[in-house]
Amino acid sequence: MSQDSQFHLNAFLMGVGHHEAAWRHPRTEAHRVLDVAHFQELGRIAERGKLDSVFFADGLAVGPRIKHNTQAIFEPVTLLSAIAVATEHVGLIATASTSYSDPYNLARKFTSLDHISGGRAGWNIVTSAGADEAANFGVDGIPAHSGRYERAEEFVDVTLALWDSWEDGAVVLDPETGVFADPGKVHTIDHDGPRFRVKGPLNSPRSAQGRPLLVQAGSSESGKEFAARYAEAVFTAQRTLEQGQEFYRDLEARVVKHGRNAGDLKVLPGIVPFIADTEEEAKALEQSFTDLISPEYSLRQLSTMLGVDLTKHSLDAPLPPLPPLDEIQGNKSRYQLVKDLAADGSLTVRQLIGLLGGGRGHRTFAGTPEQVADELQTWFEQGAADGFNIMPPYLPGGLDDFVDRVVPILQQRGLFRTEYTATTLRGHYGLTDVGNRFAGAVDEASA
Amino acid sequence: MSQDSQFHLNAFLMGVGHHEAAWRHPRTEAHRVLDVAHFQELGRIAERGKLDSVFFADGLAVGPRIKHNTQAIFEPVTLLSAIAVATEHVGLIATASTSYSDPYNLARKFTSLDHISGGRAGWNIVTSAGADEAANFGVDGIPAHSGRYERAEEFVDVTLALWDSWEDGAVVLDPETGVFADPGKVHTIDHDGPRFRVKGPLNSPRSAQGRPLLVQAGSSESGKEFAARYAEAVFTAQRTLEQGQEFYRDLEARVVKHGRNAGDLKVLPGIVPFIADTEEEAKALEQSFTDLISPEYSLRQLSTMLGVDLTKHSLDAPLPPLPPLDEIQGNKSRYQLVKDLAADGSLTVRQLIGLLGGGRGHRTFAGTPEQVADELQTWFEQGAADGFNIMPPYLPGGLDDFVDRVVPILQQRGLFRTEYTATTLRGHYGLTDVGNRFAGAVDEASA
Repeated sequence: MSQDSQFHLNAFLMGVGHHEAAWRHPRTEAHRVLDVAHFQELGRIAERGKLDSVFFADGLAVGPRIKHNTQAIFEPVTLLSAIAVATEHVGLIATASTSYSDPYNLARKFTSLDHISGGRAGWNIVTSAGADEAANFGVDGIPAHSGRYERAEEFVDVTLALWDSWEDGAVVLDPETGVFADPGKVHTIDHDGPRFRVKGPLNSPRSAQGRPLLVQAGSSESGKEFAARYAEAVFTAQRTLEQGQEFYRDLEARVVKHGRNAGDLKVLPGIVPFIADTEEEAKALEQSFTDLISPEYSLRQLSTMLGVDLTKHSLDAPLPPLPPLDEIQGNKSRYQLVKDLAADGSLTVRQLIGLLGGGRGHRTFAGTPEQVADELQTWFEQGAADGFNIMPPYLPGGLDDFVDRVVPILQQRGLFRTEYTATTLRGHYGLTDVGNRFAGAVDEASA
Repeated sequence: MSQDSQFHLNAFLMGVGHHEAAWRHPRTEAHRVLDVAHFQELGRIAERGKLDSVFFADGLAVGPRIKHNTQAIFEPVTLLSAIAVATEHVGLIATASTSYSDPYNLARKFTSLDHISGGRAGWNIVTSAGADEAANFGVDGIPAHSGRYERAEEFVDVTLALWDSWEDGAVVLDPETGVFADPGKVHTIDHDGPRFRVKGPLNSPRSAQGRPLLVQAGSSESGKEFAARYAEAVFTAQRTLEQGQEFYRDLEARVVKHGRNAGDLKVLPGIVPFIADTEEEAKALEQSFTDLISPEYSLRQLSTMLGVDLTKHSLDAPLPPLPPLDEIQGNKSRYQLVKDLAADGSLTVRQLIGLLGGGRGHRTFAGTPEQVADELQTWFEQGAADGFNIMPPYLPGGLDDFVDRVVPILQQRGLFRTEYTATTLRGHYGLTDVGNRFAGAVDEASA
């Protein structure tokens, strides 16, 4: 949220593409979902386009989608480590859950990626809404929405403290005196809260960008409050300019309410672009993907998303009435989105599936490179975005097309960088250096 | 434990060397402890020597050693991911704790490394004895030795089940039919034990080597029983041939008692080799490292190792009497080793520190390339080893010397491979393919 003259671009990467049928389409090679070199290539393509970052989502279960789901292969941070050493500039963002990990392990893992990449790591904070995920960690049913966010807040507080536990300059590394670290600049955090007790310090020094970037994607009331308090970038699904503007204004007001500057948080709506020489060809390209959607897979996915079993429901009837939002313990943002789409009862389940198939609720857009650029420019200039979460429907081709055909237009219009001017992810997003709560403090206990 | 005609070699890597003063020595560049390219280079050197694997240890705290400790930088699995994509053959083993992580997360992390590396991942199982580690995870004091191993057993049982949850061939990846996975070959594990409840399946398919190799290094009674039951390779600190033979025989008997074949577990004693053209030069090289040891650091480290505060103790007096082993809740193997060394009261603390400085209790050996090769051959042929855990005192030079000067001698003698003949870590160690408990099973629940 800022008056920047240029916007930011993140490439949200998933298997061989975001479209659920991408791996069945002739424009992809399905076996590459298992190939780390494919993902390294995607990182290099993003870097060729001077993109701010790449991002991998994650979930901690295969759920009921196993028959048709190509996504469950790599853990994102290990994957990004392999991409880090194949790239030099692009930021590297991974999802990790606050519900099913420990702050110490998570802080360490992301700091390690930050060291490996020279300060390019980012953490997309999720609270893991799924009952299938809960069952892999000894939790029955879906953990309550409010409890997940309470835990997430304490989790992030501890993680931030651990990331501050080594000050800049704590590493002395002086072979003459034999001093590796200045104990006066390495601090215990002594956190003692309702869910976590963590002494610290972290077992890894501060990284080149101070600490990993905090990213968030929840759009529920709790999610937006959480983002306004902690996040530095927000991924969001907004289907119309008006909805995007409303979300942007709402989040901006919350950020300011929390005592932060509006520019401290960047809002990045998602877009699934189908790009071709003409609008007609682009729409035909999109249709060629839609034609490959498996109704069986989609109904399972929609059932999981809604928490309502639709697998016996007719594809050509409207969606049955859905329970009210406040009864939902799962992913509220996605639930509300489907509820809105189905509100007037005019869409059949089959039509709804087609709409959702491209980007699981994110906006799809089929057009020429100029039309895509126009659309992004409009959202940026009309106060709905600080940048965009680019979700190529197929990979690597869809990212190639965006980088080679859309980015140059954005650069010509002065809307996007022509060279990297920063070395860290934080720098790419134009975020000022983070402070350190311990800077200058004296902490004998950790000496 | 086998009658193999050739032995196995693992390079245990740590910062710029195992000797605690390595980073102060002119043969190293201290700043490289922070440089991922340094570690990628080490992986490539090990591969040049056709070594079976490289290994990184880990701990979940900085403890009291922060002033002089150069080790706390990278989390091993993220680091090995970066090394995986810079190498093609060498195995990649990392320590991870059963006390402070979840089976689902750990199984996923190592499977991800296994996919990234094409089946070269190994897990060194530790139970985390330190009070400083406990304090970072909400646990007061040192967790009881027995409780740690009980948790470790259930943890490994769950992890093995998760690694079996996808059968070989479960991934169909057929674009024509739209089938990614065969649900009949992907299984829930439905584990319900005293410490963990985990439904499964894992959210990642089976890897090229079936599952990561299991490695273990504890030499306590519980540690040896654990190793005999689960481990496929054991790292161990043995200071004399006789002790090595006794350990080997003991472990072999335990392996057989657990119904396994003796050859299912490889015993790899550690050795810290100082290599030079003459024995005299090698000993002078070792002394040049010993001269750089910081007594302040060493006393803190020894105090931590023993759980006895020696920081006010005279360097030139013998060690004070130590409490009996059964009162120790921490690392029993290392404690017993120091107790043995100090048993007759003839060593001063300063001398003990010198002995321990090279490899923290592992055997150091200074000699010519031929002498090092002779020593390894003797241990192998005399029934004390299936291979060796090579711990270069300084890096990369100490590994270069071993690979370029000792390995060719071993190859000439027919004791070590001249080319890789396998593609996986499991293959390098000559371990037969693991089975899968679910192979052929019908599991409708996960369909």
